[in-house]
Amino acid sequence: MDNRVRNSMPMIKYDGNAFVDMEDEVAIEYPLTIFIDNEEFATMVCSPTNLEELVIGFLASEGMVRTFEDIESMVIDEGKGLVYVSLKVKQSINKEFYSKRFIGSCCGKSRQFYFHNDARTARTVLSKIQITIEQCFRLMKLMQEQSVDFQQTGGVHNAALCTADQLLYIQTDIGRHNALDKLYGICLKGKLPRNDKIISFSGRVSSEVLLKVAKMGIGIVLSKSAPTTLAIELANDLGITVVGFIRNHQFNIYSHSERIIEGKKGE
Amino acid sequence: MDNRVRNSMPMIKYDGNAFVDMEDEVAIEYPLTIFIDNEEFATMVCSPTNLEELVIGFLASEGMVRTFEDIESMVIDEGKGLVYVSLKVKQSINKEFYSKRFIGSCCGKSRQFYFHNDARTARTVLSKIQITIEQCFRLMKLMQEQSVDFQQTGGVHNAALCTADQLLYIQTDIGRHNALDKLYGICLKGKLPRNDKIISFSGRVSSEVLLKVAKMGIGIVLSKSAPTTLAIELANDLGITVVGFIRNHQFNIYSHSERIIEGKKGE
Repeated sequence: MDNRVRNSMPMIKYDGNAFVDMEDEVAIEYPLTIFIDNEEFATMVCSPTNLEELVIGFLASEGMVRTFEDIESMVIDEGKGLVYVSLKVKQSINKEFYSKRFIGSCCGKSRQFYFHNDARTARTVLSKIQITIEQCFRLMKLMQEQSVDFQQTGGVHNAALCTADQLLYIQTDIGRHNALDKLYGICLKGKLPRNDKIISFSGRVSSEVLLKVAKMGIGIVLSKSAPTTLAIELANDLGITVVGFIRNHQFNIYSHSERIIEGKKGE
Repeated sequence: MDNRVRNSMPMIKYDGNAFVDMEDEVAIEYPLTIFIDNEEFATMVCSPTNLEELVIGFLASEGMVRTFEDIESMVIDEGKGLVYVSLKVKQSINKEFYSKRFIGSCCGKSRQFYFHNDARTARTVLSKIQITIEQCFRLMKLMQEQSVDFQQTGGVHNAALCTADQLLYIQTDIGRHNALDKLYGICLKGKLPRNDKIISFSGRVSSEVLLKVAKMGIGIVLSKSAPTTLAIELANDLGITVVGFIRNHQFNIYSHSERIIEGKKGE
């Protein structure tokens, strides 16, 4: 358990009978500002774990880098919440373009995805991976077993990078897309192939989540929660299988159902 | 029930036994681009209800307007998802400043709140309102009774503007801060005083949610969910009472507990 995901904070509990002074475990919201070649690029809030992977994945999602090698150096000042990135090939940050892209996020304001920068970085996923019904349930169960932070704080999301049979990496963040960026960073740093992987996810599948999965080149996203209309439309376009509401031995397939197969009995 | 919050989408359900073709109610994610005096200002995604109030509240939150009268005209093209706003006093949109502020949202990337624009628009709340334990429970219950969209789609947030005794307006959106902006727009359009009001909220209280409540000048936010560390710190600074985890006749007060009183027995 990473203790940087949550902090103890004083609070007053009304226990149904009286007020009691107590401590509560609260999800940490940590501001992190990224400088690229000494120019301020972006400020995000996140859970302060795996900051290097988060920055790598975020820069890749935003089209600033394609590989880990595109980053010449990265210095993280954890105390101040600052990251200084130097790129091998210098890029001027186009403020005009950038301001239009960066308007939003997971559950509300969002960039005009797919029309601006996303059209450049989110491509149709051609992954041939298939998984069985039982593998769907098992991967969601494995992720839930490994994630106790949500139960502790009620305030974080989990995302796991999986093969059909195994959970490889799990990442936790107060931001659902940060958890995905951390996984993307792990993939890039470790040069992991992605077309044989699956994402298991605790949160709602919004258009932004779907686009991150597309940018990673991953063909299946499993969620215990709901997708949005726009996410389903993008998933149909981009060739991604969205499985939602994985609970109580049931689930819903919203797009590209060909990747979910019955599997042999007794398997 | 507003049918613009959700849409029927085809899906394949695995019901624990077999695959069945079905329709599912899915939360609509609708992109809306705001132009101010013919210049592109921002693109958000939202539930397409109360678009006028959403835009008014959003512009106020972002410091572009202070009153409803600051808006000379607004033309909404619902089909294309475009809004054309004309301001009484023309403002040049400072792209440099704007790009630094607009980096993010509710659960992840977020602007350097409180340090840039927010310091200008989020002020200490001096509201003297107090409510009883029973009023806390009752306002949360009233909101939950009126919000069936969440149960239908699993994908939207509700926010309600309340007095100590009554729920005045409830707004629903896939974006937690959009629901608040819609309430803010209702307040500005109707010239409602805010220092005697309370916000009841279905989602997590992040720093961005807390800052919106501060900008509205509202002293109490009630949530059935968790706050983050940064939201609690800001609430302490800005004079806002945060009550979380209102469930099963219990709740937690995270800041400024002086506004929650026991109330007379039998009241």
